Formats: sequence, C-alpha cells, structure tokens
Amino acid sequence: MRTSDRFRRFLPILDWARTYSSETATNDLVAAVIVTIMLIPQSLAYALLAGLPPEMGLYASILPLVAYAVFGTSRALAVGPVAVVSLMTAAAVGNLALPGTAEYAAAAITLAFLSGLILLAMGLFRLGFIANFLSHPVVAGFITASGILIATSQVATLLGIRGGGQTLPEMLGNLGANLGDISLLTLGIGVAATAFLFWVRKGLKPLLVRAGLKPRPADLLAKAGPVAAVAATAALAWAFGLAARGVAVVGEVPGGLPPLTLPSFSPEVWVSLAGSALLISVIGFVESVSVAQTLAAKRRQRIVPDQELIGLGAANIAGSLTGGYPVTGGFARSVVNFDAGAATPAAGAFTAVGLLVAAAFLTPLLYHLPKATLAATIVVAVLSLVDFGVLRRTWVYSKGDFAAVAGTVAVTLLAGVEAGVSTGVLLSILLFLWKSSRPHIAEVGLVPGTQHFRNILRHKVFTVPEVLTIRVDESLYFANARFLEDYVLARVTDGCPVREVVLMCSAVNTIDMSALESLEAINHRLRDMGLRLHLSEVKGPVMDALQRTHFLDALTGQVFLSQYDAAVALGAVPGAKRDAAE
Amino acid sequence: MRTSDRFRRFLPILDWARTYSSETATNDLVAAVIVTIMLIPQSLAYALLAGLPPEMGLYASILPLVAYAVFGTSRALAVGPVAVVSLMTAAAVGNLALPGTAEYAAAAITLAFLSGLILLAMGLFRLGFIANFLSHPVVAGFITASGILIATSQVATLLGIRGGGQTLPEMLGNLGANLGDISLLTLGIGVAATAFLFWVRKGLKPLLVRAGLKPRPADLLAKAGPVAAVAATAALAWAFGLAARGVAVVGEVPGGLPPLTLPSFSPEVWVSLAGSALLISVIGFVESVSVAQTLAAKRRQRIVPDQELIGLGAANIAGSLTGGYPVTGGFARSVVNFDAGAATPAAGAFTAVGLLVAAAFLTPLLYHLPKATLAATIVVAVLSLVDFGVLRRTWVYSKGDFAAVAGTVAVTLLAGVEAGVSTGVLLSILLFLWKSSRPHIAEVGLVPGTQHFRNILRHKVFTVPEVLTIRVDESLYFANARFLEDYVLARVTDGCPVREVVLMCSAVNTIDMSALESLEAINHRLRDMGLRLHLSEVKGPVMDALQRTHFLDALTGQVFLSQYDAAVALGAVPGAKRDAAE
Repeated sequence: MRTSDRFRRFLPILDWARTYSSETATNDLVAAVIVTIMLIPQSLAYALLAGLPPEMGLYASILPLVAYAVFGTSRALAVGPVAVVSLMTAAAVGNLALPGTAEYAAAAITLAFLSGLILLAMGLFRLGFIANFLSHPVVAGFITASGILIATSQVATLLGIRGGGQTLPEMLGNLGANLGDISLLTLGIGVAATAFLFWVRKGLKPLLVRAGLKPRPADLLAKAGPVAAVAATAALAWAFGLAARGVAVVGEVPGGLPPLTLPSFSPEVWVSLAGSALLISVIGFVESVSVAQTLAAKRRQRIVPDQELIGLGAANIAGSLTGGYPVTGGFARSVVNFDAGAATPAAGAFTAVGLLVAAAFLTPLLYHLPKATLAATIVVAVLSLVDFGVLRRTWVYSKGDFAAVAGTVAVTLLAGVEAGVSTGVLLSILLFLWKSSRPHIAEVGLVPGTQHFRNILRHKVFTVPEVLTIRVDESLYFANARFLEDYVLARVTDGCPVREVVLMCSAVNTIDMSALESLEAINHRLRDMGLRLHLSEVKGPVMDALQRTHFLDALTGQVFLSQYDAAVALGAVPGAKRDAAE
Repeated sequence: MRTSDRFRRFLPILDWARTYSSETATNDLVAAVIVTIMLIPQSLAYALLAGLPPEMGLYASILPLVAYAVFGTSRALAVGPVAVVSLMTAAAVGNLALPGTAEYAAAAITLAFLSGLILLAMGLFRLGFIANFLSHPVVAGFITASGILIATSQVATLLGIRGGGQTLPEMLGNLGANLGDISLLTLGIGVAATAFLFWVRKGLKPLLVRAGLKPRPADLLAKAGPVAAVAATAALAWAFGLAARGVAVVGEVPGGLPPLTLPSFSPEVWVSLAGSALLISVIGFVESVSVAQTLAAKRRQRIVPDQELIGLGAANIAGSLTGGYPVTGGFARSVVNFDAGAATPAAGAFTAVGLLVAAAFLTPLLYHLPKATLAATIVVAVLSLVDFGVLRRTWVYSKGDFAAVAGTVAVTLLAGVEAGVSTGVLLSILLFLWKSSRPHIAEVGLVPGTQHFRNILRHKVFTVPEVLTIRVDESLYFANARFLEDYVLARVTDGCPVREVVLMCSAVNTIDMSALESLEAINHRLRDMGLRLHLSEVKGPVMDALQRTHFLDALTGQVFLSQYDAAVALGAVPGAKRDAAE
C-alpha cells in the first residue's frame, strides 16, 4: 500500500476535502444551521438523562463532531449524545459515584475515553465483526426496552418529584413513594410541552404543507418544535418566576468554551468501567453503523465499518478531552442532517461551530428553562424507539429469535440495560449452539427424472432398502458429534436390510477433531456389523482436512463427488446396475 | 409408558437382576476380589491427593459402588475416587478451608452432594448433551495437563518435603523453597516404589507369561503390584521404625464402618462450591461415559447416557452421606473389572463389600505405610494419562482445534484445573462462532456431463457471465449475516455483466431473523441495480420458515428446487435456452 493510500484509508477527509466546492459548502451550512437548532435542547436533555450537568451535553456535541468529520466515512452521520447511550452511561457511572458529584462527571469522561480506546482498537485490529454477535432482533428488543426505561425515568421530572432507579420496578417504586410531592405547575408545563411536541411531530407538517410550504421545508421546520417549546417555557418560567414556585429549572449553566479535561487513569476506575465501556462501544457502533448504512445506501455511497470504528473512537476520545461523555451516531439528527442536504462531513464541523457559539454565549438564556420541558423532548423522542412489533414478527418467524428478544426485553426492564444487552447476546449464542447441537438430519432419495436428492418425508423420491443415505444439515463439530453417532447407530439396527450407508455432506462445512473421531467410531462400528460407510459431496476445504488424516484409508466405502455418482455406484438409481467397484 | 417400563428406565438393576445366575455370580465375585485389591491403595492415595484423610478414599468407594450398581447402565464401570476429580476437589475445597481441618472434609462432602444433585438434575431433565460442549481435544488436553499437575504435586511427598500449590509455577516454587528439607530415607522409599511400579507395569507381565502363565491372569496379577509395594514398604517402615526417622507415614486411620454424614446446607458454602461442582460433574461424566461406552462396545452392549447421569448422581449423593467425596467412573479400575470378567454391576456391589471389610478391619495395618509409597502409585498411574500427541494431531488436522487444546493445557498448568477446563470450553465455542461468522463462500458452476455444481476454483465447470451462483457454506445467522451482505454487494460491482444472482442454499440449515433482514437488504439493493435474486436447493425447514414471512413475495427472482433447475431456467447450461419465465 502506498503511503498516500494508507493515509487515505485512515483519513477519509482526504477523499472529499480535495473536491470541496462552494456549492457543497452552502448545502453543508444550511444543514448545519438546522441540526444546530435541533441539537441544543437534545444535548441538554440527554446530559440530564445521563445524570450529568446540561452543559456536558453541549460539550459532547462539539469536538466529537469535528473528530468524526476527519475520521468517519459516512457523509451524513451526526455524532453526539443519544438516548440509549446516555441511559447506559447513567447505569455504568451510577455504580461508581452519586449523580451531581464531581466524581460522577469525571467517571463519565473516563467512560468516554475508555469507549474511545475500545472503538479505536476494534477499528485498528478490524474487529468490527464482534458487533455482528448482537443480532438484529436482540438490538431491536434492547432499544425498545431502553425506550420504555428512559420514558419512565422522565415521568418523575414531568411530575416534579424525585425519581431514580435503573430498572422498571425501581423506577415505579420511587415514583409511587414520591407521588405525594407532585408539583402541579411542573406537571402542567410537562403535559403541555409533551402534547405540543407530539402535535409538532404528527400534525404540524400537514398544516404547513396545506399552508403552502413544500414537504421538505415543512418537515425541517417541524424539527424546530423542541426549540420552540424550550423558548416558550423558558420565557414563561422567567415571566412568572416559576422557579420560586416549585418548578425545577436548569439553573446556572457555565458559559464559555468547552473545558480541557483528562480522563482518570486510576486502574480501579478502569477495571470497574471496562465492561460498561465495551457494551456502550458495541451498542453505539451497531446503532451508528446501521444509521450510516441506511443513509449511504440512499445516495449509493459506501461506508467502511472498520473505519467507522476509528471515527467513533476518535469522536469519543475527543469528547473525553473536552468535558464530554460517550457519544455515537444518532438516528434522528443524522436523518435531519441528511434531509437538510448535508453533502459532506463538513456539515458536522459547521454544526460544531454553531454549538460552540451556543455553549459560549447562550447558556444564560437557559437559566429559567424548566427541566420538565427537556423531559418532554426526551419522552417524545424515545417513544418512537419503542416497537413491540419485533416480538410478534420473531414469534411468527422463529421461536429461537423470539426467545432471545423476549429475554432481552424482560431482563433490560427488570435488571437494567447492561444485564439486558449481555443476556441478549448470550441467549442468542446459546440458542444457536443448542440448535446446531441437535441438527436436522434427513434421509434422502432421488427425485425421479433428475440427479437431485431430497428428504424422503417431504418429496416423492426413489430409494432402495439396501442403501441408506443420510444428509446431516449442519457442520459436524464437538457439540453434535455424539448426536450423529447415536442417530446412525440407532437407525442401523440389527436385522435391517441396509448394507451401505452414505453420508451426504453437502451441508457439512467443517468437520472438527471431535467429529472426526465420531466418524471413525461410526466407520468402525458399521464395519463390525458388515456395513460400509461412504461419503458424498464433501466440500473442498473439508476434504483437504480429511486428507491430512488416516480416516480416508480406514474408510470402508468411497468418497463420491456427487450423491448421484454414489447412488449410481451403489445401485440406488432406477434400472442402474451396481458398480463393479464393490 | 407403563409403570413397570418407567421403573425399568430408572432402575436398570431390574433388567439384569432377574436373570442373575450362579455362574454370573462367580464371574462377578472373581472380578470383585481383584478390583478390591487394586482399589485399597488407590483409594487411600487419591484421598491424600485431594487433601483428605485416607479413610475418606475408602468410604468414597463403598456406598457409591452400590448406588451405581442399582442405577447405572454400564455392566463393567467401577465408580470411586479418580485422580483428576481428586485434584479438582482439592482446588475447589482449597478455596474454602485449609487441608487437614474438619471444615475441609465437610466441604468435600458437600461438594460430592452438590455434584450428585447436578448430575441427577441433568439426568432427569435429559441435559446430558451439555457434556458435548467439552470437545474431545479439550478433554484430552485437560487430562494431560492434569496428569502433569498431579505428578508434580506428588514429587514433594516423594522427597519428604512440604509441597502444595494449585498451579505448576506454585508447585515448583514450593518445591524449590523446601528442597533443603529432603528426607533421604523417604526419597529412597519413593524412588524404589516408583521404579518397582513402573517395572510391574511394563516388565512383570512378560515375565509371568514366560514363566508359563496365560496373558490374562498375568495381566491381572500385575495389577496387584501396588498392593505388594504397599505391603512391602509398610512392613519395612514398621520393622525399622522409619516413622521415627523422618519418614512420613499414613498414621492412625480410624477403623469401622463408614460414618453417616450430612452435607452442609449453608447457602454461602453452596454458592462458593456450585461452579466447581458443575465442572467436576461434567468432567466426571464425560470421562465416565467414554470409559463405559468403550467397554460396552466391546461386548455389543449399550449404555444410556442420561441414565448414566442418574447413576453417577446417586453414587455421589450416596458418597456424601457416608463420608465420601466426589467420585466418578475410573478408567483403570473399570478396565481391570472388565478384564477380570465382571458381567453385571453386582461385581461393583461385591467390591464394595470387600472394601467395607478393609475399612472395618485392615486400617491398623496402614499405620506404618509410608506416604511416599502412595505418592509413587499416583505418579505411575497418572503418567499414563499424559499424552502430548493430541497437540501434534490437532495441529496437523485443524489449527482451531489445536488452539483450543493448547489454550487448555497452558491455562490448566499455569492457572489451575478450573480455569483450564473453563478456558477450553469457552475457547472451542468462540473458535466455532468465529469460524461460522466468516463462512466459506464459493462461486459454483456446472460440472460438465452431470447436474452437479462445484466451486469454480477447484473444478473445471461451465458458467455464463450473466449468472452468478454463490454457495454459502454455513447457516445464515446473526454472526455472518452482514458478511454475506458485504460479499454479494462487493462481488456485483457496477459494470459487471451479472444479471442474475442465485444463492445456492444446500449448506444453509437455518436462516434466522437477522439473516432474513440481510437477504431482504440484498434483494432490495440488487433490484435497485436491475439484478434479480434467486434461491435454489432451499431445505424444507428453512422454506417453511420463509413462507411465514413476506420475503418470498418481495423476492425478485424464483426459488428453484435444484440448482440444475435454476441453471436451466436462467440459461446457464450449455446449449440451453433461457426459460420463458423471465
């Protein structure tokens, strides 16, 4: 690889920056303005969800965007705090310190740093495939359950009472215990803001279109709804002095540039955060890549998953050095960025400038902003994540997938996000192993008029009683080796007419050492009973491995290229004579 | 199932006891006498290896044998303390108490009880397949490494110094530290006993045969070697008062019947022993079943693995109620039992009576027995377990299997038995998952003159540039779904002549929800590029699942019964016209 190519692999910015034109710049600038307006309330809200001071949400949206613009491959992905990762941050950091303390914020910064390191390492060592072990249904179930947890966690803020807890029973318990403290003014603001935001989401766009706006600008204008709610409720709270009347407001938010911060390098902190950082990295990566791929496909662009890991890793490390907490590519903001016409990652950099200005100069305006308004924006945003349809779809398609999803949803709700996602991964792996340990085995016969062999139970096929052909629908490995042994020996009982046993290996993709020993045992036992064992349709890589052993020398029968050749040679084709080879 | 049949399933004794004859009884009695003589020193030695008082080895060989005779299905298996399980017991119980204390013995009894419960539960719920996840090479590597650990642990006793430790570095460190305390008298006895036992094992049988004995009696007589060593060295030590001259002897062993004992029911003890009990159960079961199967096959008998679990579970529970510690079917003693002519499990019951007599009346004779003699019997027994050949064999056959074995051996030696066996299981599962996450994918073409399709890189086949046929050699599931997506889309680049893509599914045994979504994505993208996606040779169970979804409606192409049908329809057979179906 030439040096310049290597640079280009690690610095996708070199690809698009060379051809950057003023027209592209205009598109990117327009998108950046729209995304900036959307991100200000969202960043504040998600920081509060993570149990952090609101300004950390802004900080997490500035330098990470620039870092991703340099290292990321998606042209529309917008990186920053997202709901699920904020919830996972709260769960991880909550084990180490109390929300509101300096240790809590420091731990969140360290978590971002660790997560960045993990993502970077996964990218450099091309370990992106690890994310594949999170199956689609498990991710869908996890996101749905997280959405419920997040919405429930915000109910306390909407009611103006103390909440807390990391599981649904804890949250409901805390809500119940404090229900007497409801602040009616807060409740009013919360309900009004929630209703307004739902209406903006569903009803504003049609209204604007009827008023003469084109659908796309109408759609983008509707995205400014949260900012309107923020401005209106903050003005209201200021005008009527609601802070003094029991409505919780954001309060003093330090202005200025993001601070320079360093993660903790204490080994204990690292050890206690490492598992959470890994989960956050993988979940964040899976979410981000699926958004990036969806958007790239719409414009026939490609993203490079291993480079995405580097981009997200750089973004998290950048965040941890400037007062941020774990970030990833967000669905809603990326779609808005895309729809607003963002053509290159420069749009992200421009957004960062917008948020920098907001962080530096606009924070005094946030003093009177009711926290209930931010809770309303979160509730409305996350309820769109909740999709119980995945339970129904998997139930219809595959009980195994359903079990994995149902387990993920239940454990996430009852035991929290980290237990939930771990359970999902483990369950789906265990179910896969369990399934492959009891493989589907079919006896096959010749489909008349073809050279094709199918299951005797499902198709009208030709067989002869002397020749038993078994197709094992699984690779042969330690977990199912004994199963095959039991199946073959139980099928070939004393007195049955079978003289020749053919193992049709079209679905056998590997034979490991345990399975090889089982095949040797089968060959040996069949020989003792006067039967021969043959193989057919053995794949190249499997045959290569077998040829390095003595198995083929000991095999009583032959290895046939195709099952049809085997059937012809053994006299299992209508009218065919048995081969002289016998 | 009729009541009597159900009884017979759970009580195999009903099968053989009805036809028990005096001839069978004679055979069983002869075998019992020989095995008893062999078991006395072995039981004492393994109890010392487990860090327990020697009489517990005898106790563990009495009631467990009777319980197995009632519930087990093997006619020759001899149950009792074995080397590897004794080592694992020491590792498990050593975390809880110091060897030699009453707590230590109580914990070993509880471990036997827990292990019995686990085995019983696995048998009743037919979970014997769990043992399949211990692959043959991992077991071989684990046994080899355990043999080395056990032999090393006995060196201290042979030298008359203090040893200890659960890993090779710990053991070697302790040996080195105490090397100055060597007792030359002990060393002399140890070396002489070891040399004698090796000679008995290798040289005595040929000598006896030359002296006119038949091979089988000669072989059985050679098995009495350890008893001769025990008697000779005990007499020597008594005659010369070696105990007073620094030779460690067994000392006072309480005589009488096995005591009635109860396991601890403390939740903390159970929690801290549960993991170890599971490992011991699974390892013990795997070892025992493989011995039982080997012996059963020689006489055309069958064993029932799930019932074996019940037999071993009953044996362990019986042991825990009578002062024993975890037991399983032992290789050496079972082979001796078999060779000596044991015809039914009654031989085991007779052996139990022999050992009962020994425990009741012979223990005073053991006072002067040097511990070094017992160490010598252990060293000679376990060195036959050590087989580094498995490393070479797996290296030649499969690097994945080799990695699992090498990891198991290394971790067992360096971090102990429990870490070792856990590592082996995890490594082999991870390697399997990793392999199946990057499946072998072949482009295939028609083998001329047949209807058979093979890899274009390995066979001379016919293809046409418009039709791309891909055979994925793996079930499609979450871990490899994205891999297939990337492969297909990278293969079908802009400007390539491919118009039709056929996925040949002969090796696809399941398609899970994640893979279904990937197939939908592939179908969608190919459609956007003007290409059609077809499937061929979809198996029955996979087709059943697909028909419950909308995938087949959205599929741009067709599903063909055989790949040959697909090739004919798409014009990829020499001289064939494309089907009108297009």
